[in-house]
Amino acid sequence: MKMEQVSTNRSHGGAQGVYTHSSVVTGTPMTFSVFVPGHAPGAKLPVLWYLSGLTCTHANVTEKGEFRAACAEHGLILVAPDTSPRGDDVPDDDAYDFGKGAGFYVDAMQTPWAKNFRMRTYIEQELPALIAQNFPVDMQRQGITGHSMGGHGALTISLRNPGRFRSTSAFSPIVSPLNCPWGEKALTGYIGADRTAWREYDACALIEDGARLPDLLVDQGDADGFLEEQLKTLLLADACERAGQPATIRMHEGYDHSYYFISTFMAEHVAWHAARLR
Amino acid sequence: MKMEQVSTNRSHGGAQGVYTHSSVVTGTPMTFSVFVPGHAPGAKLPVLWYLSGLTCTHANVTEKGEFRAACAEHGLILVAPDTSPRGDDVPDDDAYDFGKGAGFYVDAMQTPWAKNFRMRTYIEQELPALIAQNFPVDMQRQGITGHSMGGHGALTISLRNPGRFRSTSAFSPIVSPLNCPWGEKALTGYIGADRTAWREYDACALIEDGARLPDLLVDQGDADGFLEEQLKTLLLADACERAGQPATIRMHEGYDHSYYFISTFMAEHVAWHAARLR
Repeated sequence: MKMEQVSTNRSHGGAQGVYTHSSVVTGTPMTFSVFVPGHAPGAKLPVLWYLSGLTCTHANVTEKGEFRAACAEHGLILVAPDTSPRGDDVPDDDAYDFGKGAGFYVDAMQTPWAKNFRMRTYIEQELPALIAQNFPVDMQRQGITGHSMGGHGALTISLRNPGRFRSTSAFSPIVSPLNCPWGEKALTGYIGADRTAWREYDACALIEDGARLPDLLVDQGDADGFLEEQLKTLLLADACERAGQPATIRMHEGYDHSYYFISTFMAEHVAWHAARLR
Repeated sequence: MKMEQVSTNRSHGGAQGVYTHSSVVTGTPMTFSVFVPGHAPGAKLPVLWYLSGLTCTHANVTEKGEFRAACAEHGLILVAPDTSPRGDDVPDDDAYDFGKGAGFYVDAMQTPWAKNFRMRTYIEQELPALIAQNFPVDMQRQGITGHSMGGHGALTISLRNPGRFRSTSAFSPIVSPLNCPWGEKALTGYIGADRTAWREYDACALIEDGARLPDLLVDQGDADGFLEEQLKTLLLADACERAGQPATIRMHEGYDHSYYFISTFMAEHVAWHAARLR
């Protein structure tokens, strides 16, 4: 599998790169960023996946996430994929919450989305293989996190792949697409009207259906304008409590949905993952 | 003096705000950002000015500078002004290095620039008065820094105003507009052909002419594509050595001119200023 380097910048003693490759899964070029901290020659480092939210590309967290100092301190590689296929030939929707920039980390089953919108398989299979081939990663030591739609992605991907990720966290995740307008719109459009087929894309439903993780860290701002209608953190807290799923779910006074919130708690998340990836 | 809040976001335990006001000096609306860390009621905090480089607004460092964690740790307010007047009525140039986004922190003397391009007086007088009125700042404890054109701004403003800033630093500064294409173009355009009038806008010339600071911190990447032709860090090192001006000038292997460089050393600059502003 081939990839091309778009850019590389020395930062915090390591290298922040942006890369592109031709994805077989999505049928489009896909762009992603990778931060590799300084390390001993030949060393293999643990890797933290960061999945982004609606409207974002790899660039948002790469520029505004403030993760590099912590990743350098703990020796973690961070990979930030795009949130959907892109390109003139890819179907789209005028709304910000469906189509390009809104892949929801599912494999679409409906026309015209099914051809390109296969972000589940892209993130679970194709991109990890590419990363394993091209970067000094120890794939036995992976963690995953994400924001909002990407928090939903991190939780559901980890819950569906027991043992693959030693550590799972999320910032302001959509915890139950079955129970919010963003999720209902996206899953109706990509998956179809049969809501039982949505359950593998719903963190709360996956936990109800028996999926378990060693533990879980979720940070959420209480001034987040999407909290009540879309994110519904309490549904996750309830699902974890009922299922005996260990989880640390923290509410933070006055914080909103922006990268000003994410960057505030990024270093704590990186340290949390690093402790579990040692 | 009145100002309006454009936005505010809780971040790193403080508030990152963006504000706008009607500037008498530039004759335009001016936008700037201020980060106020968490602090005791009634406390007055030291303030660090950050002046941005060519093509930038307040937004670049606000989003990508990674200063908030350090400012919160040390209890510093950070103010990031715009780099020029803006608006449809403001004269401009097609080039990125002259006109809007390229104010060079001078008071222009040439037509048509003299009316609006008065960034020297704006930064030295009008904005500090506005900040003093509206934020919990201790104006006896000010530091100043900046990047590239803004590093030039920080050095020259501090050198021209002895005693005002207890601490002065710069990232990748233009150290001598008299001796580089960016400087020659900008000062010819804004100030005129008489190069003796440029000396108050040239850090090396100001030091040669007797201006002194307690000390000085400059960081520069050796993979910066502008180093040889435009920035010429060695001219500053020479000027400081000849004049007995204390200066710590550090070259960093592999680093370029981007915010990936600035953000790497931002925490060290904030700590350096904080130690001098206690």
